[in-house]
Amino acid sequence: MLNQRMIQLGTNRSAIRELFEFGKHYEHDHGEGSVLDFSLGNPSAPLPEVAEKVMRELIGVKGVHDYTSAPGDIAARKLLAASLDRRFGGEFTFNHLYMTMGASAALTIAFCALTSEEDEIVLLAPYFPEYMVFAQRAGAKVVVVSADEEFNPDFEQLERAINPHTALVVVNSPNNPSGKVYSRATLERLADILTAKSQEIGHPVYLVSDEPYREITYGAEVAWIPSIYPDTVVCYSWSKSLSLPGERIGYVAVNPACRHADDIIAAVAGAGRSLGYVCASSLFQRVVASLPDTTCDVNVYKTNRDLLYTALNGMGYHCISPDGAFYLMVKSPLGDGQDFSDRAKELGLLIVPGESFGVKDWVRIAYCVPKERIERAIPLFEKLAPAHE
Amino acid sequence: MLNQRMIQLGTNRSAIRELFEFGKHYEHDHGEGSVLDFSLGNPSAPLPEVAEKVMRELIGVKGVHDYTSAPGDIAARKLLAASLDRRFGGEFTFNHLYMTMGASAALTIAFCALTSEEDEIVLLAPYFPEYMVFAQRAGAKVVVVSADEEFNPDFEQLERAINPHTALVVVNSPNNPSGKVYSRATLERLADILTAKSQEIGHPVYLVSDEPYREITYGAEVAWIPSIYPDTVVCYSWSKSLSLPGERIGYVAVNPACRHADDIIAAVAGAGRSLGYVCASSLFQRVVASLPDTTCDVNVYKTNRDLLYTALNGMGYHCISPDGAFYLMVKSPLGDGQDFSDRAKELGLLIVPGESFGVKDWVRIAYCVPKERIERAIPLFEKLAPAHE
Repeated sequence: MLNQRMIQLGTNRSAIRELFEFGKHYEHDHGEGSVLDFSLGNPSAPLPEVAEKVMRELIGVKGVHDYTSAPGDIAARKLLAASLDRRFGGEFTFNHLYMTMGASAALTIAFCALTSEEDEIVLLAPYFPEYMVFAQRAGAKVVVVSADEEFNPDFEQLERAINPHTALVVVNSPNNPSGKVYSRATLERLADILTAKSQEIGHPVYLVSDEPYREITYGAEVAWIPSIYPDTVVCYSWSKSLSLPGERIGYVAVNPACRHADDIIAAVAGAGRSLGYVCASSLFQRVVASLPDTTCDVNVYKTNRDLLYTALNGMGYHCISPDGAFYLMVKSPLGDGQDFSDRAKELGLLIVPGESFGVKDWVRIAYCVPKERIERAIPLFEKLAPAHE
Repeated sequence: MLNQRMIQLGTNRSAIRELFEFGKHYEHDHGEGSVLDFSLGNPSAPLPEVAEKVMRELIGVKGVHDYTSAPGDIAARKLLAASLDRRFGGEFTFNHLYMTMGASAALTIAFCALTSEEDEIVLLAPYFPEYMVFAQRAGAKVVVVSADEEFNPDFEQLERAINPHTALVVVNSPNNPSGKVYSRATLERLADILTAKSQEIGHPVYLVSDEPYREITYGAEVAWIPSIYPDTVVCYSWSKSLSLPGERIGYVAVNPACRHADDIIAAVAGAGRSLGYVCASSLFQRVVASLPDTTCDVNVYKTNRDLLYTALNGMGYHCISPDGAFYLMVKSPLGDGQDFSDRAKELGLLIVPGESFGVKDWVRIAYCVPKERIERAIPLFEKLAPAHE
């Protein structure tokens, strides 16, 4: 009767959420600022003013709060498809876009659409831990491929991992948790492997490109993956680019050049329906369609990254300067990431152990926080620094 | 690889959506008003002005567009739980409420939480067709219990239908598609049967009460089901009560007196997580929490009901005056509901055949439309009336 797997998922929160909830309760008991929380990717750059303006204008407009078609309002999707084509030179039409309630919904839908029971999903470490949960919902098996010390995929391991059961590989660049942005050369090598392997096993291995951080970069090129590997399905969210993660608005975009594109489009719609998604927020569909090229002020994150990376590097920590997103990975000076996270927590510093990202010797610091919080954290990181061990 | 079941669900739309999309395309080709669409439950009562005002005030407020806790913002849930307790005398706290993206999400989550593979879900005809899709997502088997001619459940059939595999029974009163509001006596009889059967089979048979139409009534008492049958989980949506169906905001409420309430609360959270729901819209959580007792102007629907029912009844149609929701069921004068729907469609009148609601001899008319549309439809119904056959 009661589903034990669901009880377990509801009881054992993700490591990220566990720390975040701990921090909220601790602050509630000990006062604001009593804990320095770097756990959650809650954007700190303000919502762009133009987005506020657009929202205000749309509220109450006739029809704006009605049901849209299940894949989304056609006019909104036309604007968004045109924006993709303008920026990336694709051939997207509204029909290739399915509006979703954020990237998590998009990924769950894509996994359910692109896999059948017992198929395999390949994740490239480090990866967003909830991929595991979404894959389980699809009934698919997860295979993890390790990264090298620069957070590039171990390509030989990838080649060995792909077999006739492989349905898709997930790419997330800019990456959560590492901030890594794959170079064009890396993506081309990935595409070459997937092309050869698809031919070898007799069916396409799709790339699911999870791109909520596409616009959160500090100069590095974020190559448009569908132009490098045609069998790509893009999952996008405006949570980070417009700083409205609570509003849950994103899409699944099926590359027109995908093999079986029409079937994928149908399967995406079917998966959305069967997961209880009726349509994405009708208001926010229009908000994002009105602002297809707007991004929050990324300099807020760049300032934080520079401050934090320089400080930690100077203290002798091993970390890699992130080119995008708003996370920094630090190798645990204690060997195990969990030990480091525990020690930090004793000092009131909340950083997420790397194990659930598939890199257990690391911790993730989400630096999408007020700058002052980083300044207050630096002396605490100093206390924990390798030199002091 | 590509999931054939998802392709099928995405290709074969529901009968309701099929007609709705037909109507949109027909109007696009032949001009506005060229078709009289009674297919979809898209509310026609305007969004209450106070709701617009609240939305405007909330936009851009610090933190309003951030992630909330997965079950929803605690302050919002406290306000909503207090409203339930004030109105219905329960003992809900914020902890019993899990905010969702509308009732479809709430139902999918509840089905996934309350059933395990191979369990059975009992539906009382006539029922909302998407229940079938949500049950399939949960991996549960559906058992349908017929209604009598007044749309009350066939209680003897219900007793026979419940067996050790039965996990839950779904109640939807006021009902889509019939507009039926179960009397207190009917609900008490239902509760008696479920209580006896739960004891007999050795585990609780839960009631899942789907209540998006709770406030859309024309004088009939809508009894508060948790007070009649403690093992009840309520699925609610503001789509109809505030006329914002596109915004997808609702909740799952676990009755505090439910057996295993804590496990159900955990399983609901787990199911939401595993279906890709991160949190319900953070803006709309606050909007509805600010207006816990506000309802759109129901008189709009009452006027339509009276006009339509009186006209159809006068033409000799067999129909039952609905006490709630905004649907009217008419028995097909041609025997089969599909035939009647087809004949009506030839005249440009879109009404949904009853088969997918589990009552194949009927059609559903959604009268949540501008009154003028009903006035224009009456002569067409006259042409199809029983007297003319």
